[in-house]
Amino acid sequence: MKAEIITIGDEILIGQTVDTNSAWMGQQLNLLGIEVYQVTSVHDDRKHILKALAEAEQNSDLVLITGGLGPTKDDITKKTLCEYFNTKLVFHPEVLEHVRSLLSTRNVVINKLNQDQALLPENCTVLHNSAGTASGMWFERNNTIFVSMPGVPFEMEAIMTEEVFPRLKKLGITQSIVHKTVLTIGIPESMLAERLERWEDSLPEFVKLAYLPSPMMVKLRLSGYGTDDAAIKAEIDKQVKELLTIIPEAVYGFDNDNMGIALGRMLMAEGKTMATAESCTGGSIAQFITSNPGSSAYFKGGVVAYSNEIKSNLLGVPSELIKTVGAVSQEVAEAMALGAQKVLGVHYTVATTGIAGPDGGTDGKPVGTVWIAVAGPAGVSSKKYIFKHNRERNIIRTTHTALNMLRVLINTEKSSKS
Amino acid sequence: MKAEIITIGDEILIGQTVDTNSAWMGQQLNLLGIEVYQVTSVHDDRKHILKALAEAEQNSDLVLITGGLGPTKDDITKKTLCEYFNTKLVFHPEVLEHVRSLLSTRNVVINKLNQDQALLPENCTVLHNSAGTASGMWFERNNTIFVSMPGVPFEMEAIMTEEVFPRLKKLGITQSIVHKTVLTIGIPESMLAERLERWEDSLPEFVKLAYLPSPMMVKLRLSGYGTDDAAIKAEIDKQVKELLTIIPEAVYGFDNDNMGIALGRMLMAEGKTMATAESCTGGSIAQFITSNPGSSAYFKGGVVAYSNEIKSNLLGVPSELIKTVGAVSQEVAEAMALGAQKVLGVHYTVATTGIAGPDGGTDGKPVGTVWIAVAGPAGVSSKKYIFKHNRERNIIRTTHTALNMLRVLINTEKSSKS
Repeated sequence: MKAEIITIGDEILIGQTVDTNSAWMGQQLNLLGIEVYQVTSVHDDRKHILKALAEAEQNSDLVLITGGLGPTKDDITKKTLCEYFNTKLVFHPEVLEHVRSLLSTRNVVINKLNQDQALLPENCTVLHNSAGTASGMWFERNNTIFVSMPGVPFEMEAIMTEEVFPRLKKLGITQSIVHKTVLTIGIPESMLAERLERWEDSLPEFVKLAYLPSPMMVKLRLSGYGTDDAAIKAEIDKQVKELLTIIPEAVYGFDNDNMGIALGRMLMAEGKTMATAESCTGGSIAQFITSNPGSSAYFKGGVVAYSNEIKSNLLGVPSELIKTVGAVSQEVAEAMALGAQKVLGVHYTVATTGIAGPDGGTDGKPVGTVWIAVAGPAGVSSKKYIFKHNRERNIIRTTHTALNMLRVLINTEKSSKS
Repeated sequence: MKAEIITIGDEILIGQTVDTNSAWMGQQLNLLGIEVYQVTSVHDDRKHILKALAEAEQNSDLVLITGGLGPTKDDITKKTLCEYFNTKLVFHPEVLEHVRSLLSTRNVVINKLNQDQALLPENCTVLHNSAGTASGMWFERNNTIFVSMPGVPFEMEAIMTEEVFPRLKKLGITQSIVHKTVLTIGIPESMLAERLERWEDSLPEFVKLAYLPSPMMVKLRLSGYGTDDAAIKAEIDKQVKELLTIIPEAVYGFDNDNMGIALGRMLMAEGKTMATAESCTGGSIAQFITSNPGSSAYFKGGVVAYSNEIKSNLLGVPSELIKTVGAVSQEVAEAMALGAQKVLGVHYTVATTGIAGPDGGTDGKPVGTVWIAVAGPAGVSSKKYIFKHNRERNIIRTTHTALNMLRVLINTEKSSKS
C-alpha cells in the first residue's frame, strides 16, 4: 500500500512553520507496513489543492491531507474537498455537541465560526477529533482512500491514532517494513563507509543501508522490505550484530536513543548519579537529559550559572580566580565541575563556560570558544573547543560534546576499575 | 518568480528526519520576493526524482533540490541529475583541493569516496560549499533554473547564502512579498476571529490574513503581495497599528519574537533581573530564555532542582515542608521561587514543580499536575495546572505558562507602581 501526504498551508511554504506532521505520519505508517511515496506541501489555494489531490489519486492508495480546517476564513480545505468529491456540507448535531462541550471546558463561549465546524461533507465518514473542534474526514473513490485532518500536531495525532489506524488495520496489509538505526559517534561518514564497505556489499537485496550524518554523529539505518516480517527482522538483527563487531567503539545506541538515554543507562548500571553546571549552554544540557522519561533516577539537578556571582555563590568558584583568568577558562570550567559535584552531591558532573555569541567575543577568545569540564569519582578533566558557528549551533554542539565527554569518562572509569 | 523545493531522501519519508530546510529556504526566498509554490519530498529513487524534476520544470522558474549528495552508495542525486540533463561527470581539480584541505582540518585522511566528490556534471556551474565536501550545482534549461545542494542544513545554508542568493539577486526580481506576524496570547482562535471580523473584512485585497494557532497562543500573519514594496509595507504597518487598538492586551510581540525576548525587553526597560528554579521543567525555561542573544543582560541563572535535596540545600526549601505537603505543592513552589530570589540575587523568579510523566502520578496528583510560582519585588503568587498530555507537551506547556505568568506579573507590578 502506497501513501501520499499532502500538507496544506501558506505557513509551511513561507517558512513560518516547520512541517513535523509528515515525519510523525511516516513513522507510524511504516509500522503498519504502509510506505510513504511522497510528501507534497501546497498553498491554501483552491486550484493548487485540487491539482495535488488529483495527482495523489493517480499515484497512491492512501492520501493523508493535513491543514486548512480551522474556523477562520483563510482555511478552505473543507470547501475544496466538497468541490473535489462533488458533494455539499451537511449539519452534524453530534459534532456540534462535541464542539460545545470541548469549548465549555476551556471556558470559551461558542460562536458562529465554531458552529460551522459541525458542517461537514455529505459523502464522507466523519472522524471524531477528541483533541479539538475540527473533525477529520474519510473519503473513498476509485480504490483510493482520502483522509483530511487538522494541521495542529496533537489533533492530527489524536485522529490518526483513534480513528485512522484502526480502520487501516482492518484493510489486511501484508507488506512489512522494518527499520533499525544504529547510532554512532566519532568516525566521519567517509571513513565509516570505508570500514563498512565489505559488510555493506554483502547485505541481501531486500535490506537497504543509509548513512544519516550530522555534525559529530552518523546514524546508520538498515531498512528491510518484504512480506515475511519475522524473516526480515531476523536478517536485520543478524546484520546489526555483525556491524557491532566492526565498529564497537563508535556505537552509543539504537533507534530513538539519544546521548542522554545512553548516559542514563550507563549511570544506572553503575548505580551512579550526575548533575550539570552550565554557563554558556544556559540549561540546554539539563533540558536535554530531563526530556527523557525516568531521568530523575540518575539526574539530580543542576545550576545555570550565567552570572559570575552565581558561579561563586552557588558553585564555590573563587571570585578571585574568575577575576584573574576570566570566566571562560580551563580553571573556571574545572572549578565549576568540582563545585557542582560537591554542592549537588553527585558522582559525575559536566560543566560548560564559553561565548555562545553573537556578542562577547574578543581577539583572544572569539565567539564559539568553549571550555568543557567533566568530573567523576577519579577527578576532573577538561578540553577547549572553538566552534565557529552561530549562537544556536554553538549551544547545540557544546551540549552534544559535553554529553559525549561524560560518556567517555564514565566508560573509562568503569574499565579502569574492572 | 515561482520556486519549487524538492527534498530527496528516504529519511524524510520514513519520518526519521524532520525537513527543516524547506522552512529556512521559504523564509529566505520570500525576502528576495520569490514565492515558494510547492515543496515535494521524494525517495532516493531514480524514477521518482526524474518525475519530480520534470513536473517542477513545468510549474516553476526556480527548482531548489536538497539531499542525496553524500559520498555513500545510497546517494544518487548527482547521477540522476546527469541523466536528466543528458550530461556526464567530469573531474574538478579545484574541488578535490577543497575536499582535501577541509578533511585535513578535521584530521580525516582522504579516500576514494571523498575523491569522487570532485566529479561533477559537465554542464553545470559548480557552487562552492565552504561548509562541507559536497559541492552545489546550478543548471539552466528552458528558462528554469535548477540548484542542487546537500541536505545537511548548515551546508545547504552556506551554499544558498554564499552562492545562490547573490546569483538570484542579479536576475532583477520585481515582485515583493512582505510578511508581518503579530503574536497573541490568551484569546482563543474563534473569539479572536470574532473580535477581528470587521477589521479583517476591511483589509485591502493584496493583504492576506492567516491565523496560526498553537496551544495557548495564536499568531496572526499579514502577508502583502505586489510590486511596490514601500506601499505594501506602509499598508501593513497601518493595519497592524489598527489591530493593536482592537486587542492591545493580547499582543506580546512580533515576527520572530518569543516570550523570552518579550520578557527580556520588559525587564531591561525596568532595569530588573530574573532567575529560574525548575523541577519538572528540568532546565527548559532557562534554556528557552538563554537561547536568545543578549539574555545575559537580564537572566542571571537558575537552579534545576530535580531532587528534593537540591530543593532544600540550594534553594532553602525546608525539608520538613517537602515531607509534610509533598514536592508538588503550592507551598514548595512558592518556597522555591522565594528561595531563588534570595540565593540568586534577582528581582524576579519563576519556579515549577510537577509531574511531567509518564511515571510518578498518583490518584491525588495525576501526571500533568504542576504548580507554578512567580515572585517579584512585591511578593509571590502561584497557580496549579493540570496538563493532561505526554511528558514532552507537559514540559512545553509548563514552560510557556510559567513565562506568561512572569510576563503578567511584571506588567502588573509596573502598572501598580505608576
